Amino acid sequence: MLYRNPKNPLITPKMIEPSAEGLQVVGAFNPAAVQFNDEIILIIRVAETTIKKKDIVSVPYFKFTEGKSKIEVLDIPERSPDLTLKDTRGIFYKGKDYLSSLSHLRLARSKDGINFKVDEKPFILPADRTESFGVEDARISKINDEYYINYTIVSGDGYATFLSKTKDFKNIERLGIIFSPLNKDVCIFEEKVKGKYIALHRPDNHGFGLPSIWYAESPDLIHWGNHKCLLRPNGSKWETQKIGAGAPPVKTEYGWLVIYHAKGENNVYSLNLILLDLKYPDKIIALSKEPFMFPETKYEKEGFFGNVVFTNGHVVLPDGTINIYYGTSDEYTCMAQTSINELLNLLN
Amino acid sequence: MLYRNPKNPLITPKMIEPSAEGLQVVGAFNPAAVQFNDEIILIIRVAETTIKKKDIVSVPYFKFTEGKSKIEVLDIPERSPDLTLKDTRGIFYKGKDYLSSLSHLRLARSKDGINFKVDEKPFILPADRTESFGVEDARISKINDEYYINYTIVSGDGYATFLSKTKDFKNIERLGIIFSPLNKDVCIFEEKVKGKYIALHRPDNHGFGLPSIWYAESPDLIHWGNHKCLLRPNGSKWETQKIGAGAPPVKTEYGWLVIYHAKGENNVYSLNLILLDLKYPDKIIALSKEPFMFPETKYEKEGFFGNVVFTNGHVVLPDGTINIYYGTSDEYTCMAQTSINELLNLLN
Repeated sequence: MLYRNPKNPLITPKMIEPSAEGLQVVGAFNPAAVQFNDEIILIIRVAETTIKKKDIVSVPYFKFTEGKSKIEVLDIPERSPDLTLKDTRGIFYKGKDYLSSLSHLRLARSKDGINFKVDEKPFILPADRTESFGVEDARISKINDEYYINYTIVSGDGYATFLSKTKDFKNIERLGIIFSPLNKDVCIFEEKVKGKYIALHRPDNHGFGLPSIWYAESPDLIHWGNHKCLLRPNGSKWETQKIGAGAPPVKTEYGWLVIYHAKGENNVYSLNLILLDLKYPDKIIALSKEPFMFPETKYEKEGFFGNVVFTNGHVVLPDGTINIYYGTSDEYTCMAQTSINELLNLLN
Repeated sequence: MLYRNPKNPLITPKMIEPSAEGLQVVGAFNPAAVQFNDEIILIIRVAETTIKKKDIVSVPYFKFTEGKSKIEVLDIPERSPDLTLKDTRGIFYKGKDYLSSLSHLRLARSKDGINFKVDEKPFILPADRTESFGVEDARISKINDEYYINYTIVSGDGYATFLSKTKDFKNIERLGIIFSPLNKDVCIFEEKVKGKYIALHRPDNHGFGLPSIWYAESPDLIHWGNHKCLLRPNGSKWETQKIGAGAPPVKTEYGWLVIYHAKGENNVYSLNLILLDLKYPDKIIALSKEPFMFPETKYEKEGFFGNVVFTNGHVVLPDGTINIYYGTSDEYTCMAQTSINELLNLLN
């Protein structure tokens, strides 16, 4: 059984200070999660827009000149023939994609995993031209007492996956782009398998098949290779558009348990499971028959981009309970509880 | 000055045996090139189609079942409302991309670099599901007496770059996908710089900016990271669509000389130059003002897909002459001669 926390949504945009004057927070969602000392830390994605002007669609972005950053705004008349509104999340203008909001990453902290206090300042902001449309959707992997944080960077160069690390959630070391455009939904296993680090990633094969979950190996977390297509969308109504991995897999005695999201009919996002072989994690040994979670509550069905449950963070407690932190409707941060055993029982 | 060889095109489809019954060779182009013992070896891309049937568009592809491969054909009625003919090279059917031809890689050998004999059998054929639409556009890098061959693999999973190696151009060892979809136009430097192997690659940032040339590093040629966007299309009429690197760069005393192709207005392909810093090859130190080569002759302007000059192979002779082997119109293999000094003089 899956128990949505009755205090959901745990974090909302209203709880958050904008990062700069003239911006408003419209989303606080898609959290990475980790137990750190006596706290559960989330890295939430904070999405901001400019205040709405009449008859204008505004696109905020970072501009980098001579090492300095500045938020600029592209104002487009709503009636411009060159403008296509894609969904609430993106626009297409004069042949190029832009995002309707600008995201950064911010920490939220809690002793009980339910009541969170959000930092007043950003944790990770865009840092160069290839991040000018924002940084999004972090995952945390604890490896040898360091916390590796991978996240999506977006710009006119496309979206790609960047890796940074921290020991204290104060100082951050930037390690570089680990998966070049177009690639997101990366999760890095928290230990080596047969001498190699492992990651799942989601290249965009735009126009060919549907975006699928891929496997890769690395000697050092920085350089990745031996890419293989691991799982393609199954064609059910839940998986008509794309799939992508969530948080770092949970090691169980039966295999690596991976929660992944799928986008299906009517743009509905759901959560699903795969189990990978412990020694050969490029082999799938079991799959969930159907989603174990899909949008049901008001805060999952309504919001900035409704009908989304998306997870990229969880914390496994000593008794086998798993707190699944998840974003809903590209707006809120929520939590649901179940156990590793319950999830394993859904596999076949 | 650039001298097109008077015997161009040096290799044409008519010189080539089909790889299987029922196929016809329609292209013999985009060669990789290397000096091997007393021969110049080209790895040409051989494109094949099925014999044309009335009112039918046929798409050949490899099917892999239980370790065995077989050529299958998808026959689509020409008037199908689900069919879009993109250009002569590709079709879009029921929401997916397919190629109109199936490519493999084949060796051609020459003592003088001009008169080539093409092998009767393929050198590299598609080997698994992620290669089912063919293998294309090889580059050869000679590193420590081994020949690393990277090439584009295409399938419903998209296009990606695969690496193999050989010592003798007979036996091949498969090393895996080094750049996941969508990525092609990869060239690997022939020596390490500051302890790392270097490659240029071309991720597809579809919908965002224009596809650009990226830089990456590797400790071992298998695993790649530290990706950076190196050069974006310059917006001139020659570079309105995309750019991508050619053969492995030539090391000169002034820097790494890279020939790249650009696709511009009216789908015209041209060849251009960049010079990268010897010690910091992620820094561009000079660029060519305008293309040093663009379609001018009949065999460059007309063919399967006209107005293309595309290079992924060259051989530098001891006197500094460079034989640029190049594909024209996605159909022929040609050669043009100039010198490294002449090319360096075009940079500013």
